Amino acid sequence: MEKKIAVLPGDGIGPEVVQSALKVLDQIADIFGHRFTYETGLIGGCAIDETGEPLPAETIELCKKSDAILLGAVGGPKWDTLPGDKRPEKGLLGLRKSLQLFANLRPVTAFSSLAEASTLKKEVIEGVDLMIVRELTGGIYFGEPRKRKEINGEETAIDTLVYSKSEIERIIRKGFELAELRSKKVTSVDKANVLESSRLWREVANEVAKDFPNIELEHMLVDNAAMQLIRSPKSFDVVVTENMFGDILSDEASMLTGSLGMLPSASLSADGPGLYEPIHGTAPDIAGKGLANPLATIASLSMMLKYEFGLEKEADAIQEAIDSVLLQGERTSDLAGGEKALSTDEMTEKVIVQLKEKA
Amino acid sequence: MEKKIAVLPGDGIGPEVVQSALKVLDQIADIFGHRFTYETGLIGGCAIDETGEPLPAETIELCKKSDAILLGAVGGPKWDTLPGDKRPEKGLLGLRKSLQLFANLRPVTAFSSLAEASTLKKEVIEGVDLMIVRELTGGIYFGEPRKRKEINGEETAIDTLVYSKSEIERIIRKGFELAELRSKKVTSVDKANVLESSRLWREVANEVAKDFPNIELEHMLVDNAAMQLIRSPKSFDVVVTENMFGDILSDEASMLTGSLGMLPSASLSADGPGLYEPIHGTAPDIAGKGLANPLATIASLSMMLKYEFGLEKEADAIQEAIDSVLLQGERTSDLAGGEKALSTDEMTEKVIVQLKEKA
Ligand SMILES: CC(C)[C@H](C(=O)O)[C@@H](O)C(=O)O
Ligand SMILES: CC(C)[C@H](C(=O)O)[C@@H](O)C(=O)O
Repeated sequence: MEKKIAVLPGDGIGPEVVQSALKVLDQIADIFGHRFTYETGLIGGCAIDETGEPLPAETIELCKKSDAILLGAVGGPKWDTLPGDKRPEKGLLGLRKSLQLFANLRPVTAFSSLAEASTLKKEVIEGVDLMIVRELTGGIYFGEPRKRKEINGEETAIDTLVYSKSEIERIIRKGFELAELRSKKVTSVDKANVLESSRLWREVANEVAKDFPNIELEHMLVDNAAMQLIRSPKSFDVVVTENMFGDILSDEASMLTGSLGMLPSASLSADGPGLYEPIHGTAPDIAGKGLANPLATIASLSMMLKYEFGLEKEADAIQEAIDSVLLQGERTSDLAGGEKALSTDEMTEKVIVQLKEKA
Repeated sequence: MEKKIAVLPGDGIGPEVVQSALKVLDQIADIFGHRFTYETGLIGGCAIDETGEPLPAETIELCKKSDAILLGAVGGPKWDTLPGDKRPEKGLLGLRKSLQLFANLRPVTAFSSLAEASTLKKEVIEGVDLMIVRELTGGIYFGEPRKRKEINGEETAIDTLVYSKSEIERIIRKGFELAELRSKKVTSVDKANVLESSRLWREVANEVAKDFPNIELEHMLVDNAAMQLIRSPKSFDVVVTENMFGDILSDEASMLTGSLGMLPSASLSADGPGLYEPIHGTAPDIAGKGLANPLATIASLSMMLKYEFGLEKEADAIQEAIDSVLLQGERTSDLAGGEKALSTDEMTEKVIVQLKEKA
């Protein structure tokens, strides 16, 4: 197979973890006889520094003509004081919107080898395997108006949460489709006792559910969901929710694994290329030091191979390599709890060795 | 001291836990020589059943002429299919708004005697003592427009998140004032990398901070806060945030204590009577069975005595009685982990016995 991948390293630890992931991908290409070519683009803070824009037009073009996109992370204190529409995050949001990446898949799998790194009790997280399906191109992230305004002579700020029926329908449907391949349960999270948009959300969820008679649909209020994720994480299979709730709940759920450094994500559109990125941010405090955990980015590649290219065997090979390395006790500093830790490069090398051994 | 308390039992387990709490309050009156009189009002589902309205005008009147309000909980499946403005929750939201209860205080204290009931590791939660200060009368809970609308021939739903500078200022100031009496740290939670309202929030927080030079102000994005509450809960003192974020984060934080059944709250206005209620809901599954944990409602009374009436000694007496009872190993079913548990009445009796013993 021959595929062209747009590579957007971004800011902070982004370039380090992306570089690591590409080494792993090269190894996969070698072993399984594929050819992956890479073309790099600017996004976020580094794009602002070089072009004045967080998302240059060339980057969008590059992504559109690629088969998939690998992203590191964007943002950092350096750009935090810029006005809203000139911030690094705007680049990421713009990319999601222009490529219509409406479905953000965030699997949360607790590695039993990492149980000690989580603040939750071992018996609570062992066996956790859930997938958060977050709507990514609508809701309060994009609704208009979003602005400052004088109301009664006073400065006031407004954001708008808006969802159309079709926007809700396609993400709920995606949730059900994923549940078909998993444990056949969908938890739809909303705030229907307060929000009008959540009431529409719930109606649509009930409608879509009729097309999936073998899947259990449960509705849960977002405050309760924030609780239940900690209280009984194993009771979840697929969690489908709107953009902002998904942002909050998926970061929370990452704590089940002990580190944000473990969690990959995929952002999919109806037809174009998908975007694959770790959940974690740019970690400015450790950027450039070679300390970052590359596993979330490497796991994001595994998602790319599976969801974008249908390369299940290759995807599994990466996942198994990660598992083995962790079982061997290898840890980057985020997971080491103060013990001696591997550098980014060393961890990457361990994964590659595993891939070779099992090839 | 002589005080008049409006009592709103509400739905589900509301009447049971409120009745328990009043027994405890009578005991306090006896011991310390106060006189508390109670007048009961309708709110929520029971109010809908009797009057057609979730918040009858008489209830608002009753509250306004009282010195403080004690509420159980509102809502339940019976009323879940009613239209948005006729739901039980609308009663609670309406009460918050008409009494301008803008500051919702939610203390989260981990009882070391309950460490086994939490899904978090003992060493993570031992010593947790934080206070979530949630804005309660603004934001997306009340912003207009909030409605259905056809856009491009398609059904669409809209909610509006709006905050004025003065709304933000008074809640942030409340957060700082509370931090003065505590560990002198304020964490202001927002989503300033996405929301316009959060950027105004952050500006105002920075301004208010100038009046409190001895207090440390930290800004945190809401997704990160959802993570850090689980990762290092002891790093928080006062957390101040907007309405919806506060709803989600405070329910999440309740898991630090092992049960929502432990957490009280106070909702304060600038001058009128405050509202005191447990964080938990109506628990329809156990309603009427005498199984509910009354401790959160009893602890809410302790907040009433302290914040509304300035009765510190009396407030402490209640808190100590709760501590002792838990230390003795007394548990209601939510905390018992399947072991033999006390009924609501039995637990209440245990608290009263403690109060008498220490009097
Ligand atoms: C960087 C930020 C805009 C982004 C979001 O809120 O979506 C991030 O938190 C994420 O979850 O991908
Ligand atoms: C019942 C509901 C409207 C309410 C809220 O969302 O504020 C509840 O969850 C709470 O936290 O008091």
